[in-house]
Amino acid sequence: MDSIMIIENVTILTMNNEKEIIENGVVVINGNRIIDVGNNSIKNNYKNVDRIIDGNDGILIPGMINCHTHASMVPFRSLADDYKDRLKRYLFPLEQKLVDEKLVYIGAKYAIAEMLLGGVTTFCDMYYFEDEVAKAAKELNIRGILCETIINFPAPDAKESFGGLEYSKAFIKKWKGDSLITPGIAPHAPYTNSDESLIAAYKLSKEYDVPLTMHVAEMDYEAEKYANEYGITPVQYLDKLGVLDDNFISAHSILVNDDDIEILKSKNVKVSHNIGANAKGAKGVAPIIKMKERGIDIGLGTDGPMSGNTLDIITQMSLVGKIHKLSSNDRTVLPSIEILEMATIGGAKVLSMADEIGSIEIGKKADLVLIETESVNMQPIYDYYSTIVYSANPSNVDTVIVDGNIVVNNKKLVSSEFRKIRSELIELKDDIDKIAKIL
Amino acid sequence: MDSIMIIENVTILTMNNEKEIIENGVVVINGNRIIDVGNNSIKNNYKNVDRIIDGNDGILIPGMINCHTHASMVPFRSLADDYKDRLKRYLFPLEQKLVDEKLVYIGAKYAIAEMLLGGVTTFCDMYYFEDEVAKAAKELNIRGILCETIINFPAPDAKESFGGLEYSKAFIKKWKGDSLITPGIAPHAPYTNSDESLIAAYKLSKEYDVPLTMHVAEMDYEAEKYANEYGITPVQYLDKLGVLDDNFISAHSILVNDDDIEILKSKNVKVSHNIGANAKGAKGVAPIIKMKERGIDIGLGTDGPMSGNTLDIITQMSLVGKIHKLSSNDRTVLPSIEILEMATIGGAKVLSMADEIGSIEIGKKADLVLIETESVNMQPIYDYYSTIVYSANPSNVDTVIVDGNIVVNNKKLVSSEFRKIRSELIELKDDIDKIAKIL
Repeated sequence: MDSIMIIENVTILTMNNEKEIIENGVVVINGNRIIDVGNNSIKNNYKNVDRIIDGNDGILIPGMINCHTHASMVPFRSLADDYKDRLKRYLFPLEQKLVDEKLVYIGAKYAIAEMLLGGVTTFCDMYYFEDEVAKAAKELNIRGILCETIINFPAPDAKESFGGLEYSKAFIKKWKGDSLITPGIAPHAPYTNSDESLIAAYKLSKEYDVPLTMHVAEMDYEAEKYANEYGITPVQYLDKLGVLDDNFISAHSILVNDDDIEILKSKNVKVSHNIGANAKGAKGVAPIIKMKERGIDIGLGTDGPMSGNTLDIITQMSLVGKIHKLSSNDRTVLPSIEILEMATIGGAKVLSMADEIGSIEIGKKADLVLIETESVNMQPIYDYYSTIVYSANPSNVDTVIVDGNIVVNNKKLVSSEFRKIRSELIELKDDIDKIAKIL
Repeated sequence: MDSIMIIENVTILTMNNEKEIIENGVVVINGNRIIDVGNNSIKNNYKNVDRIIDGNDGILIPGMINCHTHASMVPFRSLADDYKDRLKRYLFPLEQKLVDEKLVYIGAKYAIAEMLLGGVTTFCDMYYFEDEVAKAAKELNIRGILCETIINFPAPDAKESFGGLEYSKAFIKKWKGDSLITPGIAPHAPYTNSDESLIAAYKLSKEYDVPLTMHVAEMDYEAEKYANEYGITPVQYLDKLGVLDDNFISAHSILVNDDDIEILKSKNVKVSHNIGANAKGAKGVAPIIKMKERGIDIGLGTDGPMSGNTLDIITQMSLVGKIHKLSSNDRTVLPSIEILEMATIGGAKVLSMADEIGSIEIGKKADLVLIETESVNMQPIYDYYSTIVYSANPSNVDTVIVDGNIVVNNKKLVSSEFRKIRSELIELKDDIDKIAKIL
């Protein structure tokens, strides 16, 4: 036995197949695995317990999964939020001038701190210098599916177009098999890649059996391009190219029609739904209710902090419910339980990790989030799912465990680094601001 | 001089006409009024200062205004959230059985605690036993515009239909002129009142010059009724009846057309926009961008906690931005500054209180909210408005001052009552749950 830790006095939302709820529940962790889940009586089976966490009548849920972000963009958060041409006017020039290893490392550290404090225990990232993101993730102990970007122009970490392909190959070899990091590969979008680079990325993903994620059917001009040039949709273009399979995580997937949904289902493609960023960017509402009915796996994502601002998943859940009820003109769609499902086990399925994470079950990795019910917004509770989806905010996250390690305790990061990361971020912000003001 | 309090080391978003921002700012309060606003140098003009609040680089904004709620419904929060017929199946029977003075008082106390902790310093309420709400508001020191409901069936506090009319008359006489409480009158909706009761309510509002608030153009069946029976809209019906004037606060106002907007403008009717509840209830998006263009005063509201769940306004602001950008298909509409404007000075105009509250200016009442910028979600800051609208959550509210009194300090209610209120609420919840389970 490694080291036994017990969490008690909690209501457990297991998110297992039966969606079991255990009141006055207990979870037993040995090393990085859950070895027992049950009611208060199971405690007596364990002697030599190293640590007992009193959940104080809180709600214990599986660690939440952020299926799509660009974590290291947090230094740009709140810049040019309401601008029409903010990508081309601000973001791309700033990235060209400023994105280097240091910015990516500091940004990742800060973003990971925010995710952990908000109950995110696994994130899927798409950016540059992913090796720096991996370093930050290991240091702060979060699970990361880290995917280097491939794009048709010179990137901050590659002089040649599509340089991300080479970077990815080395990155995958370096990190494959790590306990926390899963390397992946991220062609930015169909319209920012060539057929050759898309196929090369697909082959790399196939060769090493790693995730491939891409922005798909996100932009009006993207859909128009494929309609005008080929008379088909972005999803149909990717399908004809032969790059869709069960390692493919399709981010956004807003402009998809019924035929596209059939293709996504038949190729077992997974979808990251990023409603907050999609709404704020006025991009539309992905038809996830139809996708869910068709049996497509769907998880939730925040998108980058310049698009979606915050990086926690609790904030997304309320938006998912409200916006889909509104756009379906039906208050009964997407009940809270289905929303928490997407935030946990759904996300695990999207990342092909459902054997290891996403629910509170014996044998799974110990990725757990304790949400306190002391705060004013958390009472009364008639429905645990509804309370989490519609009343909670990230400040209600009290304790977070990743891979058996306590990383957030009493709403504070266990790592002592936060003040340092924060001042480094503010220094970066001052540099960025000087350049943004003359753009 | 009463008692001088100074707030320093803050960025002040004054929300005055010029939307002045004062970095390294200072606000001086004497008794319940703001007597000075400026940069750090004005401090030297004040001797004998009783209290200095170090804002620690936080953001100081005017107290936020919740223009529409049913505060005392908080004991029902999270009950039957995703049910289609929840009003008729759960809420009305539960209200008939359970709503009494005690429930209204406890509910109001709890809801007011939540509003203060979230930075709401003024709320406009519509419910029963408003005298109990007034008592709770005075005890916890929040500004309340409290409006007794008038409805066409026996209510918890009136044996006869429309009994709220009599209640209102006594209530108005009792509270008119109070420093914190403004009494008002609330016919529930056009379709739950008679012409006679609507006109009587209007006359009462006119006679005592008090606010009249009503749910208007909220429900599909409401719009259909007036279309089918009279070939007009709910707004047009109310206009023909002659009950619209500048004391009228129209809550929701979703199903309004361009002609209705002209009527609302010409009668100087005010609008409370309650987007979170409207989205979750799948009711639609009120055309507030058109209303704003036409010069109608618009504030934000949460609606009751059984509809909108949380009672703070910070949560609403992000929703307002995201949902209107989405439904306008334009990311540039409603920039953050306009959203904070609706949450503060806009709400003050809606409640006809803009001479006294809603901005940080010399002579106004000292209703102030300090938002800390220490937390992980609050950095970096390129745009103060954007940070508050898209990054903040109610847990970032550090200090709240209402009418010159500190009511929230270091994120805690100054009143020692919170634990007691909380356990009373949970007792109520247990009673409600027993009855709800057999409905």
